[in-house]
Amino acid sequence: MAKAAEPPSGTRDFLADDMRRRKAAFDAVAGVFEHYGFDPLETPAFERLEVFAGKLGDEASALIFKILKRGVHEATGEADLALRYDHTVPLARVVGTYGSRLPSPYKRYAIGPVWRADRPAKGRFREFTQCDIDTVGSSSPMADAEILWAVHDGLIALGVDDFRVLVNSRQALHGLLEAYGIAEDQGTAVLGTLDKLDKLAAEDVVAELADRGLDRRTAQDLVGDVTAADTDRVRKQLDTTERGRAGLAEIDRVLELTSGLPEGRVVFTPSMVRGLDYYTGPIFEVIAEGYPGSIASGGRYDGLVAKLGGPDLPACGGSIGIERILAIQAADAEAGSGLDVALTVLGAEDTMMRMAADLRARGLRTGVYLGTSGKLGKQLKWANDNRARTVLIHGPEEQAEGVVTVRDMVSGAQSAVPVAEVAEHVRSSSA
Amino acid sequence: MAKAAEPPSGTRDFLADDMRRRKAAFDAVAGVFEHYGFDPLETPAFERLEVFAGKLGDEASALIFKILKRGVHEATGEADLALRYDHTVPLARVVGTYGSRLPSPYKRYAIGPVWRADRPAKGRFREFTQCDIDTVGSSSPMADAEILWAVHDGLIALGVDDFRVLVNSRQALHGLLEAYGIAEDQGTAVLGTLDKLDKLAAEDVVAELADRGLDRRTAQDLVGDVTAADTDRVRKQLDTTERGRAGLAEIDRVLELTSGLPEGRVVFTPSMVRGLDYYTGPIFEVIAEGYPGSIASGGRYDGLVAKLGGPDLPACGGSIGIERILAIQAADAEAGSGLDVALTVLGAEDTMMRMAADLRARGLRTGVYLGTSGKLGKQLKWANDNRARTVLIHGPEEQAEGVVTVRDMVSGAQSAVPVAEVAEHVRSSSA
Repeated sequence: MAKAAEPPSGTRDFLADDMRRRKAAFDAVAGVFEHYGFDPLETPAFERLEVFAGKLGDEASALIFKILKRGVHEATGEADLALRYDHTVPLARVVGTYGSRLPSPYKRYAIGPVWRADRPAKGRFREFTQCDIDTVGSSSPMADAEILWAVHDGLIALGVDDFRVLVNSRQALHGLLEAYGIAEDQGTAVLGTLDKLDKLAAEDVVAELADRGLDRRTAQDLVGDVTAADTDRVRKQLDTTERGRAGLAEIDRVLELTSGLPEGRVVFTPSMVRGLDYYTGPIFEVIAEGYPGSIASGGRYDGLVAKLGGPDLPACGGSIGIERILAIQAADAEAGSGLDVALTVLGAEDTMMRMAADLRARGLRTGVYLGTSGKLGKQLKWANDNRARTVLIHGPEEQAEGVVTVRDMVSGAQSAVPVAEVAEHVRSSSA
Repeated sequence: MAKAAEPPSGTRDFLADDMRRRKAAFDAVAGVFEHYGFDPLETPAFERLEVFAGKLGDEASALIFKILKRGVHEATGEADLALRYDHTVPLARVVGTYGSRLPSPYKRYAIGPVWRADRPAKGRFREFTQCDIDTVGSSSPMADAEILWAVHDGLIALGVDDFRVLVNSRQALHGLLEAYGIAEDQGTAVLGTLDKLDKLAAEDVVAELADRGLDRRTAQDLVGDVTAADTDRVRKQLDTTERGRAGLAEIDRVLELTSGLPEGRVVFTPSMVRGLDYYTGPIFEVIAEGYPGSIASGGRYDGLVAKLGGPDLPACGGSIGIERILAIQAADAEAGSGLDVALTVLGAEDTMMRMAADLRARGLRTGVYLGTSGKLGKQLKWANDNRARTVLIHGPEEQAEGVVTVRDMVSGAQSAVPVAEVAEHVRSSSA
């Protein structure tokens, strides 16, 4: 196959079954978010390049797809626009653009593609859908709990059921470092290492902490605390500093406000760090049986909207890893449904078009044979390729008698039905 | 407002009401196309630049948004990708990419954004949604009729009802030129002028034809034929050449195969030309009361898929001008619906979160007050801003009595309902 005939590297064409599965998933999640009173938002595929300037780190900036200036400026080779890298930068821009014309707090969800010039790999694409839900303008713990609850229900709507929501707090983590007397400037590196506890053995993490200059005994105690089955150990440590107590209070408030969720779903997990350092309050991450890594995450990020160029508003949000979930589910997915009814065409084209219209008006997905073959066998193959449940045959014999042969493609059963009654007959038998 | 805070020139942010209206429209049309047995297709936002090379005319090529090469190649100022200009070039590419793995004929629809660096103007955007339906691989007139029928039903689903589908045929138009002895090389210019009959007076069109070198008498007869109320005049002319007869047969076949549509909906309109010259067979255009210009169009374009780099397959299709329709409808649109229920928060946060969960589980769009004010008046204003139909109040008095005050925001009526019964009470009274 010529390279030009493939979609660009790292992108995908979504054909029928994929498209329907994706749309059903997006609609299911959107429906949940709507019930929580969140508004949909769609921003343009690209933003002015200056909107990104200085907002993303070097690593992210290198992944931006930039759009060349147009017309006479094209020759300069300069860019002035860039494809959406995530939904967060546009959210900050929108909050700045519309200000008080938006509801306060502004609760919005965004489900749509983003583009990153990442090296394509299995499961890593250059065009992929992000599914974000955020509340800007509320510092209430109810806002945090609501995000967690909505993400929970979103996952249920996606058919994920065996999962746990791990909860922690950035304040608690910093409080813990304080309790252990770990210097502020060492903190980020230590948290970065603790974040590996889901992949590395505890002793490897202790070793890495020691490499980073932590006293070995401290490292062992710290790792022991955050990985203990009982959170009492870490609670005792947190209780020794003001920041730790504040963090613990945040965590307990989220746990209380989500106590309506099934027992054991939401779990204080002291070892959960979340890589991104913009979180300022409660954080969460969802792990699920049968899915590698985390399938959703989020937290409070009070300074970020201002840092991204928007007004200085508190905010919290979450993201469902919908591409990851769809990828896992696709492996088990059955082929989508095909046509409800396939009409063969053996003359009487006008009759067949009207019959198709009648069937469609009754809500049935109806195809009419549009090929050139006059052979029933070939037309039945077409019907079968289109996974038709029912096939209608109105050949010369049937035409003479004013009937249609209705064939059930599963059982093979056939019956003759008068032309005028066929649409209603098929509808009622496929109900 | 700083320029950087606005969306890029020619693009729009779609906030809640717009988004919901657009999604409802897209879903309505998609639902119709699905019933006709068309498959959804979504291609990447961008294609390799070479996919466009030589496929679009100079005018269109100038409107392509090109994406700069990335990494070390960025400095060259060269582009290797381009944003989707329409859904037709990607369709041709997809038919080439997947070949026999696609159903035959391949019936697909695509509803999604395209990008053109056009000069922004009222109603003209740089990012806008195109809504296309096409059948590739069938030369049957039933395929043409099916497209027309599906577009018809799509418009009905969009709430457009007073419209007519004008039908003509490129073959008939060429046959007519033959009948008048107009040279082939003059033909395109003559058709281009005839195409203005929907905007200019007949005598102005005659004058322009004369300017283009047509004998004045011929110009008058030609314009007289195509604008006559009775199509018999033009039918007689068409009957004098082979091409004209073939064109007329095409038109009559489409009229017969769509005779199931309401009387007078589909009309042979000899003066309708369609600007684009890639059409090869039947063509159609939809005009509607209350909408300027045409709101849908299409036709058969047998050579185009090959010209665009795909295999040499016959094809026909149509397009609904959904942005134009949405723009007209937006003027009359009422504000969208808001929250079904708004929960004020005057303490008892845990109870309110559980109450919200109960309401959402019953399918109600439920918001919880997330602000900092403890004043009922401020919270009621929030509920009102969010167009809540019902407000729940569970203040200190209600808490003491274990009830919730349920306020109907339209009638102002209030009643006290026990906490445990409130969700079901609200659901049944808002059903």
